[in-house]
Amino acid sequence: MKYELYYWPGIQGRGEYVRLALEDAGAEYTDIALLSEARGGGVSALRRYLEGDDVERPPFAPPFLKAGRQLIGQTANILLYLGGRLGLAPRDAAGRLWTHQLQLTIMDLVAEAHDTHHPIGSALYYEDQKAPAKRRAKDFRENRMPKFYGYFERVLERNRSGAPGMVGKRITYADLSMAQAIAGLRYAFPAASRKALRATPRLEALHDAVLDRPRIKRYLASKRRLDFNNDDIFRRYKALDG
Amino acid sequence: MKYELYYWPGIQGRGEYVRLALEDAGAEYTDIALLSEARGGGVSALRRYLEGDDVERPPFAPPFLKAGRQLIGQTANILLYLGGRLGLAPRDAAGRLWTHQLQLTIMDLVAEAHDTHHPIGSALYYEDQKAPAKRRAKDFRENRMPKFYGYFERVLERNRSGAPGMVGKRITYADLSMAQAIAGLRYAFPAASRKALRATPRLEALHDAVLDRPRIKRYLASKRRLDFNNDDIFRRYKALDG
Repeated sequence: MKYELYYWPGIQGRGEYVRLALEDAGAEYTDIALLSEARGGGVSALRRYLEGDDVERPPFAPPFLKAGRQLIGQTANILLYLGGRLGLAPRDAAGRLWTHQLQLTIMDLVAEAHDTHHPIGSALYYEDQKAPAKRRAKDFRENRMPKFYGYFERVLERNRSGAPGMVGKRITYADLSMAQAIAGLRYAFPAASRKALRATPRLEALHDAVLDRPRIKRYLASKRRLDFNNDDIFRRYKALDG
Repeated sequence: MKYELYYWPGIQGRGEYVRLALEDAGAEYTDIALLSEARGGGVSALRRYLEGDDVERPPFAPPFLKAGRQLIGQTANILLYLGGRLGLAPRDAAGRLWTHQLQLTIMDLVAEAHDTHHPIGSALYYEDQKAPAKRRAKDFRENRMPKFYGYFERVLERNRSGAPGMVGKRITYADLSMAQAIAGLRYAFPAASRKALRATPRLEALHDAVLDRPRIKRYLASKRRLDFNNDDIFRRYKALDG
């Protein structure tokens, strides 16, 4: 199967969680928005599915994945679909549901990280919501981030297989996503991350184990991997790191 | 199978999406927190799973469901599990993924509705974030709510089965959740809801069709159904309805 990934160009965003799974599995895929408009790419390709009258099951927002004739939206849903196919989820139904549950919790963390710089509205500029952003970021650093990190650390602790991942012996897509979230939070909140990770050594080790996987390493060093930047979900504003 | 639902007492919250599915299917379930502490209920029963050292796969937050020995967290994940078992999801894999995708988008809408009254932090009082709440609610009413409603109206339009639901001929758990979200938004934003629903007649008809289902009707008239209230996700603050 050759997959087509549809996501906004120029940022990692939520598309990155899908990319990491595809890259780690060595799957064949095209990042459609990176093709030229002439070759059917660019933002027009996304809009065709978001706005086209003939799309029977339209996604609400990118990322979405085309797999044959199937169009799949919602990041965690895409990974639920890909997990088994790419060997990045357990084989048993209960294990798959648990992996998906972790992924949904990671997506909640990511949404809250985003809202630190956009607490009032995602369509408004950061500059127009700096004061509430500072307050929300404080709550995120002091309460939410430690709560999420503490939770995932407990999950790692209780995976009795002794593996570095959260579910069973093998790395899952949720582990790849967790590593990406940690990396993003490190970019956005370097001081708060240092503090949080000191208390969650298993989480830091998971991050390192994922970044050490050969295909992930190769991907991160490639031109396909975009840098973290301040148009993205994770943003580095000094005022928000306390 | 006799299910056990774990959710905070006193509010509908995210537990309500699970309750509606269980009620519509006539499933046997116990709302554990409503039992007395002496009978193993109350908030202690929740805390046992949230904080207990011996829980192998702990949920991050309520709601969670016990089904036999399986413990399942994250609202949309619980419904993914229950959907097929309760006859509230299509039989084919693509249809199930699509239903789940819609559910995840509904959960995004619900999270945004919550953040209108808590844009700074969910652990702080509304009274301490009234000014940013007013700004966020304005953005929600004017941009986000119409965007979500417009999206779901298109989804209904494109369900060519002619049924009132979003997926195929039969009502799914996503339809039940959609009706609950519409009802909640009507409570919280009566004026904005009137305006939004005028533009989305199919969505209003879906809401009415769900509330007209015999088991849902009976549930809503029962003592098991709590009223909307201002400790809940959907809150009626006059200042936030514009």
